[in-house]
Amino acid sequence: MELLYALFICLSLLVSTAKGLWPIPRNLETGNSFIKLHNSFKISLDGNISRPPQDLLDAIERTMSFLRNDKLQRLVVGRGAADRGAIGSASALQKLLISINSDDIKPIGEEAVKDVLQRNEAYSLSVPADGGGAVIRAETTLGVLRGLTTFSQLWYDDGQGVTYAFGVPVNIENDSPAFPYRGFMLDTSRHFFKVDDIKRMLDVMSWVKLNMFHWHAVDSQSFPISIAEFPEVAAKGAYSSQETYSTDNIQDIVSYAAARGIDVLLEIDTPGHTAAIADSHPEHMACPFGSPWRTFAGEPPAGQLRLASAETTNFTTSLITAIAKTLPSKFFSTGGDEINLNCYANDSATQADLQRTGRTLEQALNDFTQSTHGALRTLGKFPVVWEEMALEHEVDLHNDTVVMVWISSQHVAAVAAQNLRIVHAASDFFYLDCGAGGWIGNNPNGGSSCAFRSWQQTYTFDPFANLTQEQHSLILGGQQLMWTEQTSPENLDPIVWPRAATSAEIFWTGATLPDGSPRNVASALPRLHDIRYRMVQRGINAIALQPEWCALRPNTCDVNA
Amino acid sequence: MELLYALFICLSLLVSTAKGLWPIPRNLETGNSFIKLHNSFKISLDGNISRPPQDLLDAIERTMSFLRNDKLQRLVVGRGAADRGAIGSASALQKLLISINSDDIKPIGEEAVKDVLQRNEAYSLSVPADGGGAVIRAETTLGVLRGLTTFSQLWYDDGQGVTYAFGVPVNIENDSPAFPYRGFMLDTSRHFFKVDDIKRMLDVMSWVKLNMFHWHAVDSQSFPISIAEFPEVAAKGAYSSQETYSTDNIQDIVSYAAARGIDVLLEIDTPGHTAAIADSHPEHMACPFGSPWRTFAGEPPAGQLRLASAETTNFTTSLITAIAKTLPSKFFSTGGDEINLNCYANDSATQADLQRTGRTLEQALNDFTQSTHGALRTLGKFPVVWEEMALEHEVDLHNDTVVMVWISSQHVAAVAAQNLRIVHAASDFFYLDCGAGGWIGNNPNGGSSCAFRSWQQTYTFDPFANLTQEQHSLILGGQQLMWTEQTSPENLDPIVWPRAATSAEIFWTGATLPDGSPRNVASALPRLHDIRYRMVQRGINAIALQPEWCALRPNTCDVNA
Repeated sequence: MELLYALFICLSLLVSTAKGLWPIPRNLETGNSFIKLHNSFKISLDGNISRPPQDLLDAIERTMSFLRNDKLQRLVVGRGAADRGAIGSASALQKLLISINSDDIKPIGEEAVKDVLQRNEAYSLSVPADGGGAVIRAETTLGVLRGLTTFSQLWYDDGQGVTYAFGVPVNIENDSPAFPYRGFMLDTSRHFFKVDDIKRMLDVMSWVKLNMFHWHAVDSQSFPISIAEFPEVAAKGAYSSQETYSTDNIQDIVSYAAARGIDVLLEIDTPGHTAAIADSHPEHMACPFGSPWRTFAGEPPAGQLRLASAETTNFTTSLITAIAKTLPSKFFSTGGDEINLNCYANDSATQADLQRTGRTLEQALNDFTQSTHGALRTLGKFPVVWEEMALEHEVDLHNDTVVMVWISSQHVAAVAAQNLRIVHAASDFFYLDCGAGGWIGNNPNGGSSCAFRSWQQTYTFDPFANLTQEQHSLILGGQQLMWTEQTSPENLDPIVWPRAATSAEIFWTGATLPDGSPRNVASALPRLHDIRYRMVQRGINAIALQPEWCALRPNTCDVNA
Repeated sequence: MELLYALFICLSLLVSTAKGLWPIPRNLETGNSFIKLHNSFKISLDGNISRPPQDLLDAIERTMSFLRNDKLQRLVVGRGAADRGAIGSASALQKLLISINSDDIKPIGEEAVKDVLQRNEAYSLSVPADGGGAVIRAETTLGVLRGLTTFSQLWYDDGQGVTYAFGVPVNIENDSPAFPYRGFMLDTSRHFFKVDDIKRMLDVMSWVKLNMFHWHAVDSQSFPISIAEFPEVAAKGAYSSQETYSTDNIQDIVSYAAARGIDVLLEIDTPGHTAAIADSHPEHMACPFGSPWRTFAGEPPAGQLRLASAETTNFTTSLITAIAKTLPSKFFSTGGDEINLNCYANDSATQADLQRTGRTLEQALNDFTQSTHGALRTLGKFPVVWEEMALEHEVDLHNDTVVMVWISSQHVAAVAAQNLRIVHAASDFFYLDCGAGGWIGNNPNGGSSCAFRSWQQTYTFDPFANLTQEQHSLILGGQQLMWTEQTSPENLDPIVWPRAATSAEIFWTGATLPDGSPRNVASALPRLHDIRYRMVQRGINAIALQPEWCALRPNTCDVNA
């Protein structure tokens, strides 16, 4: 009996540690051999790629740099030394060939900002055990990038400078994501993050094949985004002149992201969450800095755009147009969460505007939204909104609109019933800020408004829960979200990583593992450890998930192990 | 009414931002003036200090370095620029004089490792507004260090290189701690921390006047402490040879701590939590790596010292003696938590030992403990234990023993009833690891075993709850604890700081503020922000407590503000 149990443990170790791939490819065949990386290993482009885009060459160089510098020793007892025997007799891989089946090869940066439904991220990868060449095949440079990312996750260090892979041959046939939208949201208003902090997040996103950076750029606390036609808004609404993103910074972030296969979805939250605009444009603001704040807003300071005012509607539409037109993405978010009705009820200007035009507040909100969304459509973009715009207001949303469900995953079905496209962002599964205590100052309990969302809890999310088969195509994907009331550059890495990689696998791999079994936390954990330790090797302060003793002994710290 | 409210806010701002001192001195008088630091500002020693200890000179140099490099701008709207007008006409402070009223001046490092009841940390500090000299008076170098720490917290930067203080004159008469033991515990077994990580924690501890580093050095997962007479234990029980503390490392940590006014209380947890010894000494181990682990231990791997064995008792006593004798502290912990009875019930060697000697397990545990504690007393040290040794077992603890209450603060009274000395370490107030999700691998909920302990929750702790007046003297103090199942160097700073400063104020300042009012979270928060931002300026990745908008506007993010 004990022998059988030991055998079971050994077998499950073999399977569960066979790869450190995250997200795990949808198709994956592996062997039992080891190979070394040859000293003169090269990544080369197929002959038909006569003028390779620079961002493809950069992606190759980054991959080479990872192979040289990751120095990740395998997570087993004895670490790299445990594999030295097997490595000794292994063949050496001399080359990885990249082949792109296309007559019109475009830069990664162009492929990455297409409509998500038109992005082609598929790739195939084969790594032989006999020293023959490895091959990545794709139809786009974006697909090649995904293949390179997978390839770079295969390699370990033996502690003596030998880089090797195990579980070869590896054969991945036509791996492509289950969902086109796989995101991460960062709030740069409650705390400011330097361009380098954002780039570091984009780096890690690309390592786990996330492809949408939802930039919740502004909010009531600060307005760090500089907009060329409206310089006064950031000048007065940012925390300081050092805590702003110049137009050059924004373009830098957008192109850095695109070269890494990531599209930037910028959000200018309206009409609520806008108090930071009051410093420059008090004429557009209802209940600015109203006190006590709880009467007028979910979070201080209070202040909402005077949505019933024609001037404010024009101002907002112009502001959004001014920034949206500079961005390549097909998506732009106008926000729309947590509109406080009491604020408008107490704003005499808004009440006068409503009375004069004979509209209800909801009618005015619809007009306001049609104006901003119309402007986005003129720019060829899809509007993105928070769920309240679909579920709590009388706004006529066109069915090109993308709705982010945040309050509860239980609200997804109601949005789908309106035939609107959906991004999963529900607080009950995807909020990274939950559980860190409350930010309200004089609360002696200091309680959190929501409990910590462990990676396990997130990982068990079902994207199709409560939906009919016909509604499945409405689900674009999902994202984890980093609200920053209590997060600043100082703790950004560990609060985000590796947890935000969880949704990367949910939405790339889908419901089942390559062998057809359901995704599950027990088999995911060893791979998540692996990518976390790899992140640390690459300089990211990703948090530990278990004692190192457990990380070195897959599944030994499971219950009943 | 609104005017009155505004006046109230203004007044409370004046009071609450008058100082960034943490912990706040027990006596504090402040004025309303500003002073600048003179370009040639110096800290000098009184003439009677003919041969100043090197660690005092080092502490002075560190203080000078903070004055030069902190560059902390005050947490108000406009930051440093907001004070430039007031600074313009301020006097310049040219000198701080240090005076020690003693015929026998000893190094800080010697004062810091005395019995806590004999340590003298008292100091007085006066900083005039007129440019005359500031003065620190103390009876020991340790007191001077505390005074220098307070002094260094007075200074801000105006954003243009001017270093200034506000709220002067400052007069602090005979500030000394309410409790002699103010600690922080770090577990270096679940994850290894480099010497530099530990030194960084010691630095921050000294900035908030914490004086005991409880080093939970070893546990079942790894044994990183190298002990000269028993090199095999770390050689086989550490995660790797890189993840060990050499005897030189240990001495380095101890002297680094002492020079900063911190005593190192080392713990070798026994007889449970010792599986890491099984790799080198299987002969001393009951239920090593027993499976399923939950049957034999609270956390994998299982394994406990064979406490009924004379050989194991000798081995353990020798091991503890070998390390304890190299340490200057008067305190040493033998642990004693979470002894698993089932492990011993299933260990045939233990059962045979018990039968042969005609003892119960509890009698054997008493003999085992008398042996280790007797050895510590021979070395002139007080044994420290976890609460179970007092409350759950039949061990005869001498009343020099210090008991750490960890399971629940409700257990303090029962320990006090035994007339044993107490360090508060209760999980319901002081555990820094709580709330980060569970570390068990295959639990789909991934739930935490305990909820996040916010600083507010910790801050409201009452050290004398449920005790009689006569029992108050049993309370030595308390500490926050960092168990590291899910903490590694990558997230150490933000999970510890500034939260672990909370107990620094509880146990230094005591129940009341200098003006006699009770300590409270609303008035503490602006000061805690201040010390947190100062930590960040000094390179510590301390976590943010509120949106920056709130940090710049004291009490504005309170409920009802």
